[in-house]
Amino acid sequence: MKTQIKGHSLVSGLTIQESDTTFHAINPANDQALKPEYHQLNAASVEAIATHAQAAFSDYNQRSGAERAAFLRQIADNIHAAVEDLVEYMPAETALPEPRVRGETERTTGQLRLFANLIEEGSWVDARIETAQPDRKPLPKPDVRSVLQPLGPVIVFCASNFPLAFSVAGGDTAAALASGCPVIVKAHHSHPGTAEIVGQAVMAAVESCQMPDGTFSLVYGPGQEIGTALVKHPAIKVVGFTGSRAGGTALMKAAFERDEPIPVYAEMSSINPVVILPEALEQNGETIATDLHKSVTLGLGQFCTNPGLVLLPAGKAANRFATQLKDALANTADGHSLNAGIAEAYRSTVNQLASLQDSGVTVHHANPGDGNNHKCQVGTALFEVNAPTFLNLNALHQEAFGPSTTLITYQNQDELIQVVSAFEGQLTGTIHATGQDLQNTPNIVATLQERVGRILFGGFPTGVEVCHAMVHGGPYPSTSDGRSTSVGTMAIHRFVRAVCYQCAPDAVLPDALKNTNPLNLSRLINGQRTRDPI
Amino acid sequence: MKTQIKGHSLVSGLTIQESDTTFHAINPANDQALKPEYHQLNAASVEAIATHAQAAFSDYNQRSGAERAAFLRQIADNIHAAVEDLVEYMPAETALPEPRVRGETERTTGQLRLFANLIEEGSWVDARIETAQPDRKPLPKPDVRSVLQPLGPVIVFCASNFPLAFSVAGGDTAAALASGCPVIVKAHHSHPGTAEIVGQAVMAAVESCQMPDGTFSLVYGPGQEIGTALVKHPAIKVVGFTGSRAGGTALMKAAFERDEPIPVYAEMSSINPVVILPEALEQNGETIATDLHKSVTLGLGQFCTNPGLVLLPAGKAANRFATQLKDALANTADGHSLNAGIAEAYRSTVNQLASLQDSGVTVHHANPGDGNNHKCQVGTALFEVNAPTFLNLNALHQEAFGPSTTLITYQNQDELIQVVSAFEGQLTGTIHATGQDLQNTPNIVATLQERVGRILFGGFPTGVEVCHAMVHGGPYPSTSDGRSTSVGTMAIHRFVRAVCYQCAPDAVLPDALKNTNPLNLSRLINGQRTRDPI
Repeated sequence: MKTQIKGHSLVSGLTIQESDTTFHAINPANDQALKPEYHQLNAASVEAIATHAQAAFSDYNQRSGAERAAFLRQIADNIHAAVEDLVEYMPAETALPEPRVRGETERTTGQLRLFANLIEEGSWVDARIETAQPDRKPLPKPDVRSVLQPLGPVIVFCASNFPLAFSVAGGDTAAALASGCPVIVKAHHSHPGTAEIVGQAVMAAVESCQMPDGTFSLVYGPGQEIGTALVKHPAIKVVGFTGSRAGGTALMKAAFERDEPIPVYAEMSSINPVVILPEALEQNGETIATDLHKSVTLGLGQFCTNPGLVLLPAGKAANRFATQLKDALANTADGHSLNAGIAEAYRSTVNQLASLQDSGVTVHHANPGDGNNHKCQVGTALFEVNAPTFLNLNALHQEAFGPSTTLITYQNQDELIQVVSAFEGQLTGTIHATGQDLQNTPNIVATLQERVGRILFGGFPTGVEVCHAMVHGGPYPSTSDGRSTSVGTMAIHRFVRAVCYQCAPDAVLPDALKNTNPLNLSRLINGQRTRDPI
Repeated sequence: MKTQIKGHSLVSGLTIQESDTTFHAINPANDQALKPEYHQLNAASVEAIATHAQAAFSDYNQRSGAERAAFLRQIADNIHAAVEDLVEYMPAETALPEPRVRGETERTTGQLRLFANLIEEGSWVDARIETAQPDRKPLPKPDVRSVLQPLGPVIVFCASNFPLAFSVAGGDTAAALASGCPVIVKAHHSHPGTAEIVGQAVMAAVESCQMPDGTFSLVYGPGQEIGTALVKHPAIKVVGFTGSRAGGTALMKAAFERDEPIPVYAEMSSINPVVILPEALEQNGETIATDLHKSVTLGLGQFCTNPGLVLLPAGKAANRFATQLKDALANTADGHSLNAGIAEAYRSTVNQLASLQDSGVTVHHANPGDGNNHKCQVGTALFEVNAPTFLNLNALHQEAFGPSTTLITYQNQDELIQVVSAFEGQLTGTIHATGQDLQNTPNIVATLQERVGRILFGGFPTGVEVCHAMVHGGPYPSTSDGRSTSVGTMAIHRFVRAVCYQCAPDAVLPDALKNTNPLNLSRLINGQRTRDPI
């Protein structure tokens, strides 16, 4: 390994205190402890680190889009240069295979470069200018201009299931740094070494790009102590989180109870319903089942977009579909969850559903794994219920985070719409339909769309394209705030607010609002979009 | 009067129940009860009204921008046609003079027409299209498109201090209806008749434009009972509020504690600091004092943007400024607050500040009015403190909602920055400075900007231009959510979220995302802004 892993929080330009407690990662494949020991931050250092980020803010938010773009690209370059270290180290911490490590590294650096392009071009700041009309009656119109400005220091919590793309330099960090906000990352206890490899890559970029100390920090410690203390610190202005519903709602509460409540973007849980309409099932049932199997088992089902519910019309085609899917799942090798907590939660959910046969749950297949000898080993599961059973049983509305899915058969359109209307907010909803199906079921699109952030026609929700149009978010409880996305360039709006300047001299205006348009932005001037100067 | 005022909630197509309790407006000028009696909604009817709005949503949100624009213009026309009724009725309920009634009516209809223009043109929906790349390696790129969609039924609470522009058909209602959300308005108890005149104008537009029943309702009843019950109802998806900090935070709590927390846009309190720098004071002190007096007393100081704190360099010029302002305020006639509650709160704040002479508060002038004989009659007040006193006394950081202001003298730049850094979040901050002043005080703009939604250079914050660039919002506690504005076209973003369509057949896509671009919108296609079809 080129990277020297040291086992400490990364905070530059500041002496921090650590507690005597240490922890280490566990290899999910063999339950063995991994080196090095990781030192936990002392809660007394939270104040210093938060203030450090606040001090960096007033400098960092003044850097131009071009400077910040160069910084993001340097981070991407440094992570790319560390890929062999990640390939060497990350599989032991996560049980994720080498191709996944390489793929997720590419996605992570791709995200950083996409945000670099966005801020280098610069028009995302939504510059708006209304010029003065001194002679307007009855009152003169003042010169009024607005532009998006960063909110301040952000705390980002690493996700267990995306050790790169939703962690130290993942989507939230990339978007926050792009917007002009310093970032403090709270590492996940499952993959501290992976976090440190990426954290050192970011730190090196902070230094070589001469960004202020405190632009980025990476801290290790228990979430309930260190994480919550950071969320509550007055200098912190935004929270980004991907994880469990319990974890997300606890952070929402902590943020709401502050003297100054702050926005929390928590991605929490989603069961991602897949609706198969009759003609699509008849015509393509076999292909859909084959692809569904791949999607359910991808990454051992440990994706927020894992399809956990599949609605299909009751009948012979549904029976064939269930049999085919059951055979495929039963023939799928066991895998190792990312950590023992995830495996235990999965096992508990699968066992709970398997115990509900008397309540109308058909257990096609259930292999929760043997938690005694192999803590992280889990297998697949497939359940089936009819619509009334789904509507009655609360347990079926919960996420099973792993390679399990549940079929729901419906008798008719009314039952289908009833089931879809009973869904809580979801990240995604998928419809498999022919053109005729969509004509026959006019309400399905509108009903599903009200409950999801992304609606797919064909295909499966695993695989989230990083682009300008992606929405990886959705109504509560899939996320804490359905007005936002954690993937794609629209994520930058999490970290900003519009600030308005009235009758400001050109010299004090942000460059984005100056008369000459020195940044050559697309701006809204008196309601017309243009790159012209004033 | 053309309008027949009836004294009941307005809900079309639904039989509602009312309690036996009634209330009536009070004329602030003479404490007399006004006719008619207003019947309060029975809490049992909340369920029916919320469900009614939900039912309207699925129809209303499908109406085209052109149809909704025609609806908004019809509302504006109907309100304009009722202006003589408002002139006849509103002054008795509010003690606001005729020119204000006419001016606020124009502003209200202007807002509605501005939103009509916005949605008729349509590009505000931020349509984004990424076309498929089936041959991309290692994975094909899917077709991904996103567009802003309305969130669902909105509850809007009328403001006491803007009976038209922030009430029944005010900014929030206009923006919500423009976005595609049905609106339930909770009338303010201070001006029920004004609310009904406008409510009937909206109702007539719902009917003549053939919008679904439930697109708009106006309800009367106690906020803590009826208002809170509506905020808690699962069908309601957004809350808009302008009023007290206590009222706003109570609604935030109710919304947060729902099974599904929802966004609350509450505008609560702001003291709108005005910073006068040395050279500006020397050169323009007399003019600034004259204009400040007008701004402080405008509308009897009952504006969210009333300048409640004025910072100026200690010295002879500051003394002259104080004397001039004191004389002007002392010579200002008393007025009548909008209601007894506002007068009592103002009187209490002025009396509290006047009692702090031993703590360093200079009382230049304090005329809280005689609450015993004339409940709503209040006069002006002017206090002065030095910077250390301001920093020590919490009472000086609170809003005095009325024609009162406090001067803070600073000895030097450090003290100035210290005072500005101690401000809570504000709607506005104003700087009076010469070019030389700004060069001499390089940190003032950045320090103030972090704490406000709008920063003015010269002038005064009262008077809020309704346009594309206005931000009438600000960091907590000036509002509950500093990422948003209640004035100007950006307010439409309060009521929407982006929804993403992956690989959708053109037939099911919203018109904004169809290949041919039938609405001729400016769209972001593969990162490029264009009106071209695909």
